[in-house]
Amino acid sequence: MKTLSFLRQTVLFWIALAVCQAVSADEGMWLFNDLPRDYLKTKYGFEPTDEWTRHVMLSCVRFNSGGSASFISGTGLVLTNHHVGADTLHKISDARHNYLRDGFHAKTPAEEIKAPDLELNQLVAIEDVTERVGAAVTAEMSAAEAFAARRAVMSKIEKQSLDATGLRSDVVTLYGGARYHLYRYKKYTDVRLVWAPEAAVAAFGGDADNFEYPRYCLDVCLFRVYTDGKPVKIDHFLKLSPKNVVEGELIFMPGNPGSTQRIFTVAALKFQRDRYVPFVLNLLHRQEILYQQYALDGDEQRRQVRRDMLGVQNARKAYSGILHGLQDPACLAHKQAEEAALRAKVQSDPHLKPYADAWKTIEETQARRVKLLGKTASFAAKPYDIAQTLVFMAAEDQKPNSKRLREYRESARASLEQQLFSPAPIHADLERAKLADSLGFFVEQRGGDDPLARKVLDGKSPQARAAELIAGTKLIQIAERRRLAQGGRAAVDASTDPMIELAKLMEPEARRIREIEDELDELERQAYAQITSAVYAIKGTSTYPDATFTLRLAFGQVKGYVENGRIIPPWTTVGGAFEHEKKHGAKEPWKLPRRWNARRGKLNLETPFNFVSTADIIGGNSGSPVINRDAELVGVVFDGNIQSLTGRHYYSDQLARAVSVTSNVIVEALKKIYDAERLVEELAR
Amino acid sequence: MKTLSFLRQTVLFWIALAVCQAVSADEGMWLFNDLPRDYLKTKYGFEPTDEWTRHVMLSCVRFNSGGSASFISGTGLVLTNHHVGADTLHKISDARHNYLRDGFHAKTPAEEIKAPDLELNQLVAIEDVTERVGAAVTAEMSAAEAFAARRAVMSKIEKQSLDATGLRSDVVTLYGGARYHLYRYKKYTDVRLVWAPEAAVAAFGGDADNFEYPRYCLDVCLFRVYTDGKPVKIDHFLKLSPKNVVEGELIFMPGNPGSTQRIFTVAALKFQRDRYVPFVLNLLHRQEILYQQYALDGDEQRRQVRRDMLGVQNARKAYSGILHGLQDPACLAHKQAEEAALRAKVQSDPHLKPYADAWKTIEETQARRVKLLGKTASFAAKPYDIAQTLVFMAAEDQKPNSKRLREYRESARASLEQQLFSPAPIHADLERAKLADSLGFFVEQRGGDDPLARKVLDGKSPQARAAELIAGTKLIQIAERRRLAQGGRAAVDASTDPMIELAKLMEPEARRIREIEDELDELERQAYAQITSAVYAIKGTSTYPDATFTLRLAFGQVKGYVENGRIIPPWTTVGGAFEHEKKHGAKEPWKLPRRWNARRGKLNLETPFNFVSTADIIGGNSGSPVINRDAELVGVVFDGNIQSLTGRHYYSDQLARAVSVTSNVIVEALKKIYDAERLVEELAR
Repeated sequence: MKTLSFLRQTVLFWIALAVCQAVSADEGMWLFNDLPRDYLKTKYGFEPTDEWTRHVMLSCVRFNSGGSASFISGTGLVLTNHHVGADTLHKISDARHNYLRDGFHAKTPAEEIKAPDLELNQLVAIEDVTERVGAAVTAEMSAAEAFAARRAVMSKIEKQSLDATGLRSDVVTLYGGARYHLYRYKKYTDVRLVWAPEAAVAAFGGDADNFEYPRYCLDVCLFRVYTDGKPVKIDHFLKLSPKNVVEGELIFMPGNPGSTQRIFTVAALKFQRDRYVPFVLNLLHRQEILYQQYALDGDEQRRQVRRDMLGVQNARKAYSGILHGLQDPACLAHKQAEEAALRAKVQSDPHLKPYADAWKTIEETQARRVKLLGKTASFAAKPYDIAQTLVFMAAEDQKPNSKRLREYRESARASLEQQLFSPAPIHADLERAKLADSLGFFVEQRGGDDPLARKVLDGKSPQARAAELIAGTKLIQIAERRRLAQGGRAAVDASTDPMIELAKLMEPEARRIREIEDELDELERQAYAQITSAVYAIKGTSTYPDATFTLRLAFGQVKGYVENGRIIPPWTTVGGAFEHEKKHGAKEPWKLPRRWNARRGKLNLETPFNFVSTADIIGGNSGSPVINRDAELVGVVFDGNIQSLTGRHYYSDQLARAVSVTSNVIVEALKKIYDAERLVEELAR
Repeated sequence: MKTLSFLRQTVLFWIALAVCQAVSADEGMWLFNDLPRDYLKTKYGFEPTDEWTRHVMLSCVRFNSGGSASFISGTGLVLTNHHVGADTLHKISDARHNYLRDGFHAKTPAEEIKAPDLELNQLVAIEDVTERVGAAVTAEMSAAEAFAARRAVMSKIEKQSLDATGLRSDVVTLYGGARYHLYRYKKYTDVRLVWAPEAAVAAFGGDADNFEYPRYCLDVCLFRVYTDGKPVKIDHFLKLSPKNVVEGELIFMPGNPGSTQRIFTVAALKFQRDRYVPFVLNLLHRQEILYQQYALDGDEQRRQVRRDMLGVQNARKAYSGILHGLQDPACLAHKQAEEAALRAKVQSDPHLKPYADAWKTIEETQARRVKLLGKTASFAAKPYDIAQTLVFMAAEDQKPNSKRLREYRESARASLEQQLFSPAPIHADLERAKLADSLGFFVEQRGGDDPLARKVLDGKSPQARAAELIAGTKLIQIAERRRLAQGGRAAVDASTDPMIELAKLMEPEARRIREIEDELDELERQAYAQITSAVYAIKGTSTYPDATFTLRLAFGQVKGYVENGRIIPPWTTVGGAFEHEKKHGAKEPWKLPRRWNARRGKLNLETPFNFVSTADIIGGNSGSPVINRDAELVGVVFDGNIQSLTGRHYYSDQLARAVSVTSNVIVEALKKIYDAERLVEELAR
């Protein structure tokens, strides 16, 4: 029992660093090279072998567009969420084909559609490079110098690794800056859509049911990875479990959680509470109304803006939940008490005293971040994004690799170019509406008298200026982007494309803001590294780092909960989906696809549809496989319930739950609704 | 021609005070006691007689809920917009009757439904009291003293008038503070709904078509005024013109424009552009999303929130248009040049030099207004509004009438109590959602560490606190409101109603903010009075003052326009409405009521539906009658086109147009769609 008690202490301490924490044990987004082996063994009697761990790691894939996934066949079939595939579903659609809304099914391999700009990453190795990175930075350096030195050594490590292995190589900053690991990925860029259901069942209940539970969503779709024009042959993939999940069952969710802020100090949380999150929500509300207004213009406009709309609705609901948690005084009070205790300990220990200023540093960076809020030097429209990339690339390419901004380093070039030259359609009307709004926002933030704002508008209203820019730019054509990228500095300097000229006008300000941000990041990195070291010194053990959109292992139990006295069962069924539809009068967004109602009689209505578990996940985990002890696939996570939204800052297993689609309902639907025998057979192999 | 040239100069000068002005002549929201007689005579050969003016004035009524209207029969029939009547249509509806959506028709007088809290005002006299008000203020007074003195004398004038005449008596501040007029109104509080069409045709095209043209909206409804339980007998009402409007025809729009800011200095406009309007838009976006989310909960929730939603959508579109105008650098540049010329003239003239600081004063008040933005001390929920009124009323009633806040003065008491004791339904769920959001907003604006914010939340999240407040308050019951109002200070002090306690907690801060606002208003009033005087001195004549939600006369011509090379005709037809429906696939919001399609064959499709004119109107004018030279009703104004939205700051007749419903389509619909023979006969009398 000693181990457990010791672990409990550690966990409790880390819980305390998070806010408003109930005692809970299934917390954590663990590094694959540092799993909580003792805890899993003690609580669940489960010992992940190296073979198990490696198999799971190699079975996982990351969608660089923002999501997680897994291989589920030896011939490269990839399972993820419909809402992760949505970006591609949208990009391959046009005025006549609305795959995002209507779904897609390649009945033969030849019908599988190539995604225009998808990059999938399969993590193959992790190497600790903390010492190499640390050695580049000395105590005498200013924050700016330290940042430059760190950036240089990271670029060097990545370039060496790329040259040596041919693998995508990213140095990842962990524990807020206390550790640096090199992640090597196998990269797949020929990714084809195989099957997707209708949005009406993938996102059954729409925005209203998003982040709610009970749920009934078939939020999945299938891609296939190709190499050299053929389906990839792979050794590691997840087999579907034939069994239904059971209550209390231990499950794992390997995936790529995007971002958590559990290490944040009280000062940093207050900045989030009072400034950053309200600011983001204002922006999201504004964008949501903008997209709604655009959609009013007609069905095609509605289709064009659908992907942006879904993204902004999801973010709005997520940030609202985050703010609810931050504004709850009880939550912050807990965190405050814990931080005060830790700081007192650090103050009173002569060895730790050097770390005592770390909290003050973060308080100071927050005050500087307040001034930076809204001070963007960019515009939210795709053609501007392209122009800015071209202008920066031309300038960065003049520098040695180690001195470039991270996104322009050599080891990231292939990924950058895939995006830059993407053949995904650009809708001029939509981009004009977005650009006009973004220009207006820029002027609002700086005031209409700001010299740069005046230059940006060039004497016109934001609407007139946006119309002029979109009408005048040639960057919608891929050939022109290639010409400017290949022509480098000279071509960009010579270009009179109005969007390029706008990006050139903005470049100095964009760099000025970037420098401040980088400096603040560096100051915080150093401070959080000190806080982490202080915690190590006091508690003598490690835990999981905040999420970094890299592969982690979460775990937990399939488990219902009690909400306002109402028992919420651990899973829903196919029959429940039809009842849910009926309860809402079968009106949108609660209208199941016609096909579902037509084939209702063929379905096993008892099939579990969605289920909840205590695993600790966050945005980015979407599409993560849910596996059992035998590494069999029992589901795919696609959401958290509303109570889980505070997870950015603290974990709780009282009410917060991850929501997943069961493997069984996927097979049931493929067989009986979508006539996808080809895929069902492939999965059974 | 001398008169015209002289007038032109004057008009041009005032145009210059407005921004971005094309030469235009039909500008102005004229005082009924100071009409542009010479101009009308010269340009249109029309001389409004005193009899004409008095008849029109007495035929007009103001909806105190925010809108204009007119008497159209000798037995008290009142015509206004559907969207002006919407507040009442909403309040008399319940879960089983959705009059706002479905319309209403009282087939007999007995079926006419009494509005719960409507007050209609009929202006009967205007008296210039500038000298009396001015005499109360001396040059030595501080802004706060001057404000108090002015408030006292205004309350005294109003009270004396009320006692002497029994009429509602309001002293109105005109020309930003240069003139004060006493307006006496006959007040009607027994107002009953007679007829309203379906929202589907009243607001055909919904939010998408709002502020657009061509339009096809039957945005009208009929009320009837009662006194002593019987329809009022009145001598002055507008007869419907049997003729269609013709292009170029001179028309008048007597009504109550709410608020314009054409006198504003450049500094004041910049505050609007950079701070105030963006702030309001953020708030509107936030509310719109809040209401949308509430409506997702079901049909009844959708009905409950419909009225709030329509209001916020309309405001969002209006403010967007205002901001577009303000952000257009060309507009402000025009205003800047004119202001500079005026200031140079004032500086160089020894008699005017005392006024030279006025612009600086306004610049300084704007800087102080920036700090006040978002610093509310109130919450946007009806039960809180009631609590705040009760708490303030209890305190204000301790003071002599002349020292009270304006809204608590004796002459306004009856109107205040009508609102306070309104039996209009309060939906607890909706108010909880609004209160939670408003509490959250309060915490965001002040930061979660603000001592008052902490007291307001009382250790809970905004959501939990709102739930507790709504569950605990008894103010939803009218009897409890009456008990507290009658019990006065002692009853309010003794009350432990959580909403009353919250209002008591907020009272000091609310008064503190109110004092600052009143001081800023006073400083600006004095400054604008000086600017106005300087203009008088230089130009030697008067013009119309900014809108103050009091009766004004606008005029203009029925006139189409050219937009992006496309000729927009001056009116649409009934047949056009069906074509517009078809063009949008008869999908909401472009789905005409079933009844319209069923009776299409009976309709004269050539009947003009909506028409545009150059008259200078703004929000508040909604429901204003449109009359011809003979004071016959040819229509009802209900909107402006998108180009008119900049009208808050400047008038133009190039593209900006007022949009009206024709009298003829009203009669056509009453006869052939709504079987309202009783009303058609009454109108013909």
